[in-house]
Amino acid sequence: MKASQFFISTLKEAPADAEVVSHKLMMRAGLIKKLGAGIYNYMPMGLRVIRKVEAIVREEMNRAGAVECAMPVVQPAELWQETGRFEKMGPELLRIKDRHDRDFVIQPTSEEVVTDIARQELRSYKQLPKNLYQIQTKFRDERRPRFGLMRGREFIMKDAYSFDRDMVSAKASYQVMAAAYRRIFDRFGLRYRAVAADSGAIGGDLSEEFQVIAATGEDAIVYCPQSDYAANMEKAEALAPVQPRPAAAQAMTKTPTPGKATCADVAQLLGVPLSTTVKSLVLATDTLNDAGDIVGSQVWLLLLRGDHDMNEIKVSKVPGLDKGFRFATLAEIEDHFGCKPGYLGPVGLKKPVKVIADREVAVMADWICGANEVDYHITGVNWARDLAEPDAVADLRNVVAGDKSPDGAGELAIERGIEVGHVFYLGTKYSKAMNATFLGEDGKPAFFEMGCYGIGITRLPAAAIEQNHDERGIIWPDAIAPFTVVVCPVGMDRSDAVKATAEQLYADLLAAGIDVILDDRGERPGAMFADWELIGVPHRVTIGDKSLKDGVVEYQHRRDAAATKVAVGDIATYVRSRLSA
Amino acid sequence: MKASQFFISTLKEAPADAEVVSHKLMMRAGLIKKLGAGIYNYMPMGLRVIRKVEAIVREEMNRAGAVECAMPVVQPAELWQETGRFEKMGPELLRIKDRHDRDFVIQPTSEEVVTDIARQELRSYKQLPKNLYQIQTKFRDERRPRFGLMRGREFIMKDAYSFDRDMVSAKASYQVMAAAYRRIFDRFGLRYRAVAADSGAIGGDLSEEFQVIAATGEDAIVYCPQSDYAANMEKAEALAPVQPRPAAAQAMTKTPTPGKATCADVAQLLGVPLSTTVKSLVLATDTLNDAGDIVGSQVWLLLLRGDHDMNEIKVSKVPGLDKGFRFATLAEIEDHFGCKPGYLGPVGLKKPVKVIADREVAVMADWICGANEVDYHITGVNWARDLAEPDAVADLRNVVAGDKSPDGAGELAIERGIEVGHVFYLGTKYSKAMNATFLGEDGKPAFFEMGCYGIGITRLPAAAIEQNHDERGIIWPDAIAPFTVVVCPVGMDRSDAVKATAEQLYADLLAAGIDVILDDRGERPGAMFADWELIGVPHRVTIGDKSLKDGVVEYQHRRDAAATKVAVGDIATYVRSRLSA
Repeated sequence: MKASQFFISTLKEAPADAEVVSHKLMMRAGLIKKLGAGIYNYMPMGLRVIRKVEAIVREEMNRAGAVECAMPVVQPAELWQETGRFEKMGPELLRIKDRHDRDFVIQPTSEEVVTDIARQELRSYKQLPKNLYQIQTKFRDERRPRFGLMRGREFIMKDAYSFDRDMVSAKASYQVMAAAYRRIFDRFGLRYRAVAADSGAIGGDLSEEFQVIAATGEDAIVYCPQSDYAANMEKAEALAPVQPRPAAAQAMTKTPTPGKATCADVAQLLGVPLSTTVKSLVLATDTLNDAGDIVGSQVWLLLLRGDHDMNEIKVSKVPGLDKGFRFATLAEIEDHFGCKPGYLGPVGLKKPVKVIADREVAVMADWICGANEVDYHITGVNWARDLAEPDAVADLRNVVAGDKSPDGAGELAIERGIEVGHVFYLGTKYSKAMNATFLGEDGKPAFFEMGCYGIGITRLPAAAIEQNHDERGIIWPDAIAPFTVVVCPVGMDRSDAVKATAEQLYADLLAAGIDVILDDRGERPGAMFADWELIGVPHRVTIGDKSLKDGVVEYQHRRDAAATKVAVGDIATYVRSRLSA
Repeated sequence: MKASQFFISTLKEAPADAEVVSHKLMMRAGLIKKLGAGIYNYMPMGLRVIRKVEAIVREEMNRAGAVECAMPVVQPAELWQETGRFEKMGPELLRIKDRHDRDFVIQPTSEEVVTDIARQELRSYKQLPKNLYQIQTKFRDERRPRFGLMRGREFIMKDAYSFDRDMVSAKASYQVMAAAYRRIFDRFGLRYRAVAADSGAIGGDLSEEFQVIAATGEDAIVYCPQSDYAANMEKAEALAPVQPRPAAAQAMTKTPTPGKATCADVAQLLGVPLSTTVKSLVLATDTLNDAGDIVGSQVWLLLLRGDHDMNEIKVSKVPGLDKGFRFATLAEIEDHFGCKPGYLGPVGLKKPVKVIADREVAVMADWICGANEVDYHITGVNWARDLAEPDAVADLRNVVAGDKSPDGAGELAIERGIEVGHVFYLGTKYSKAMNATFLGEDGKPAFFEMGCYGIGITRLPAAAIEQNHDERGIIWPDAIAPFTVVVCPVGMDRSDAVKATAEQLYADLLAAGIDVILDDRGERPGAMFADWELIGVPHRVTIGDKSLKDGVVEYQHRRDAAATKVAVGDIATYVRSRLSA
C-alpha cells in the first residue's frame, strides 16, 4: 500500500470525551471515528486491524472444527420470546418494530437463533458434535457507552455455539474451544490470562475469561505467581484460615465511638488495626406464596472483617441466600437491631437473625463491632463466650493480595485485565427453553448440551492498545498491526536515489508477503515520524539522502530507543529477521 | 474440508413460499435458511459463496484504488435529516428509537455517513480524489420481500463512494469504477451486460447497471447484437423514424366501435393492424403558488402507437412535464374531451390541451383514434389536414425488439436481466445538502463531486443460480462455488483402496491450493451424488472399488453429460486442467 492511495488522518489532540488511553489513541491515530454515542465508523486504518483480528480468529476456529455461518443482525422477536429474554433483558436489548408493527431485536448475541437452527437441522446424534460460529455485528444499547470500542453499542463479536449429545461430549467441546482460544490469544501477541470465572446457576467449573493484562483494565484478575492458578475476582476462593481461633484475651467492653459509623473510623479512633474490626451487613430474604405475595421475611447478618469487601457472587451461593436476596430495609434493621446502621453488631439483638460469618471472622478473637446503640461499639468480642457461634461460616469476601492460593501453591497476586473472550458451558439452558432436541442413539429425543464462546473482535484492538502504548502512541504487536512495516523516505521528491531505494525496498517487502506501507505523501520527516509512531506500526525503515551516500538506511522498531543503521543491500533481510515469527 | 466436519443440509422439496428457482435451490441446497420474511441465516455452505464474492469484489476495489472502511449498521437520524431522507424515504427505511428515545435508522445505504466523513476528513483538494467503500449489512423494509436473497430485507451490499474536486475528475473516478466492475463481473464467470441506465434528475450519461443475464430476470435489457450498445428499458432511446410521414390516402371517417374501448379491440373489429391505431393518454400538471396551493392546471394529451407502451421516465423528461405530472382526473377529461376514457382522441376537443406525439405517431398517416364520443372511433386521421401538428414530438415509449439501435449499428434485441451492480455519478446532490466542502486550489471552499457504486453481494449468488442451473440443481462457476471440487469415494468404509485413494487425492488438491471437499459422510452413492449436484459443485471425482481395480477414477464436470475415466495417477493434474483460469 502506498500512503498517498490510503486514508491517513491523524489528530494532534484527542476529543474531550475520550477518557481512556486506547480511546484517545484510536481517535488520534484515525482508526475509528465517532458517529454517535458508542457508535463508530471503522476507518480504513482501524479496519485493517479488525480484519487481522478476524482472520486469526477464523483460522483457529476452523482449525478447531467449528463451522462459520452468519445469523441476521435483525432478528424476529418470536424466538426471543421463547426463552423469555425478549421480556427479561433490559433496555440494552434494542427492540424494533417493522412496517407491519412486528417486533424485532438487533442481536446482542445469537443463542436463540442458533438453537433454532440446531433444532431444525441437527436431528440425530450422528450429526453431533457441531460448533457453529459467526463474526458479526452486534448491538447493545448500553446506558453509558464509553471508552470508545471498549464499551460501544455497536460492535463486532465472534460468537460460537457448540451442540453435543451429552455432558461428557459437551465438556470435551468446551475444552477444544478453550485450547483454540489459547492459540488465538497467543497469536495476537498480547500478554493475557485465561482465568476461571463463575458459571452462575449452571454450576461446574466450565467458565473461563480471557483477559488481556493492562493496568487500566476494568477487571481484577487473581493469580498465583507460583502456579497456573488464575480466576476473576468473583470466582477466586478465599480459603479458610488454617490457624485455629485464638483464645479470648480481652473482656468485652462497650466503648463510646461518637460519630464513627465505619470500621475505618472506629479503628482510627481506637488506634487498632482495621483487621481487628468486624463489619455487619444486613440482608433479607422473602418467602412468597403461589400468587407471588410476600408471606414472610428472614433477616440475615453477614459479618466480614473490616478490611475485607463483600463478594456478591459468593454471597448468592450461601444456602438460604441462593434463591435471591436483598438489602434489609431500615425498618427491618431497627426492628431486629434496635439501632440504625453504622453501629450494628451481632451481640445483643432485639430479635434473632441468621448470622453468617466470613471464614476469617469465624477464627477471630477479641474483635470490635457495633454495640447496636448509636455512637457506641464494643471491643474484645469473642465467639462462644459473648455470643453464639454463627449459624454458618462461608467464604463471603473478595480475596486480597497475599491470601493463600486455593491450589496451595503460594500466595495470590492481583492485577488488572480487560475481558476480550469468554468460554462458557451452557448445559441445556437454551435447548430446554426452546425444546431443542435430537434423536439419541437410544431412539429417544434428548436436549442438546450447549456451550457458547465469544471474542470481542472490536474490543481486542482497544485492549491491545491499553497494554501496548507509550507517550508517542500505539505499539502494535506484529500480528494485528494495521501495517507491519512502514518505509519512510525523507525528501523523496528531491532525491532520485531516495525514491528508487524506497520503491525497491517496498517492492521487495511486498514480494516477500510482508504488509508494508510506503509513505509517499511528501510530509516533513518530523510529521511523518510522529504519524507512524502515533499509528504504531511496529517496524520502520527510514531512507534519507545523507545516510544513503554511506550506503545505509535506518531501521527502528517502535520499541527501540534508537535507530539501527543497516546496509541498503541487507535491509529487506534485516527487516524480515526482526518480524515476529 | 471434510464433509463430516462441515455442515451439509439438503432438502428434497423446497418450501412452499419459494417462488423462483434460485430461492428454491438455495433453500434445498442448504445455502440459506429463513428466519423471517426477507431475513435469512447464511448457512455455512452459502456463506462460502458469499465470502468468495466478497473477496473478488474487495480485490478489485483495492486494485482500483478504493479504500475499505466500515460504517455502522445503526446510524443516528440527524445526518439523515440533513438530506431530508429521514422524512422522504418511505417505510422501507427502518427507523428505531434507542433507550433514550433518540431516532436511528438501520442503513439501507450510507451516502449521509460517508459524506459526513468526507466533510470532516477531506479538507483539501490535495486529498482528492478518494473512494471509500464498505462491504456491510444493509436493511430495507420491503413491503413484499420475496425470491429469497433476490429481494430480501437484510442483505449485504458493497457500497463505494467517490469524492472529487470537479466534474472532470469525478467522471474519471466513475470510469475507473465502471472498469473495475467489468473486471469483477468477468471474474465471477457469469454472462452479464453493463447497460446504460437513466441518471434521473442529475442528467448526463454516467449511470450503468450491471445485469446478470437470466430468462427469469425482473429487468428488460435492450442491446444491439451488432454493437456494444446496451441500456435498460427506461433509458433505451427509440430513434425518430427516418422515413417521412406518408401522404394522406384516406378520408377521415367516424366509425361505430360499440364497446371497443382499447386499441387492440378496435384494430380487431376493423380488421387492421394494431400499429395503425393511436392511443390517447391524458396527464395533468399543476401550478402552485408560494403557499403550495394549486392555482392552475394544464391538461396534456400523449399520443402513442397502439402497439407501444408508455415509458414513464421518458415522459418525465418532456419539457413541461419534467417538474412532475399526474394522470388527469375523470372530471378534467370530460371537461376537455367531452367524453369518458376509452374513446378519446386529439380531434374535436372541447377545450384545448397540450398534445405531445411520440416520434412514431408524428410520422403516421391515415391513423385511427377515439372520436371523443362513446362507442365511436375515427379512421383515416392525418396530421395537418384533420388536426394541428402536435405541440411537441418526443420519445415517449419503450423500445421494442427490431427497433433501430441508437448507435446506428443494427436492430435492438431484448433480453432479461437481474441487476446486481450499479455505478452512478451523483454530482453535488449530497455534498450540497450536507454542506460538504473542501478547500480548492484557489483557496475557496467547493462542494465535493461524488459518485456511488453498489454491488449486491448476497443477490449475486441468487442471480448466478438463475443463470446457471438445471433440473438437478445449481451449477456454480468455479470462482464462486462453495467448493471447487468434490471427491466422492464410494464405499469408503468397505475399501481401504478407495479410502486411501480418496484421502491422497484430497491431500494433493488441497496442497495445490484447490478448494476441495472430501465427502466422507458414508452416504449411499445415489444420495451423495444428488447432494452435490443439488449444491452445484462444478467438479466431481468419483472413486469406486471397481474402477479402481482398473486403475481409473471418474471425473465429471457438473455440466458434463457423462463421466470421464482418468488414470489414478493423472487425476490431480486432470482436475487442475479442467478448472477455470
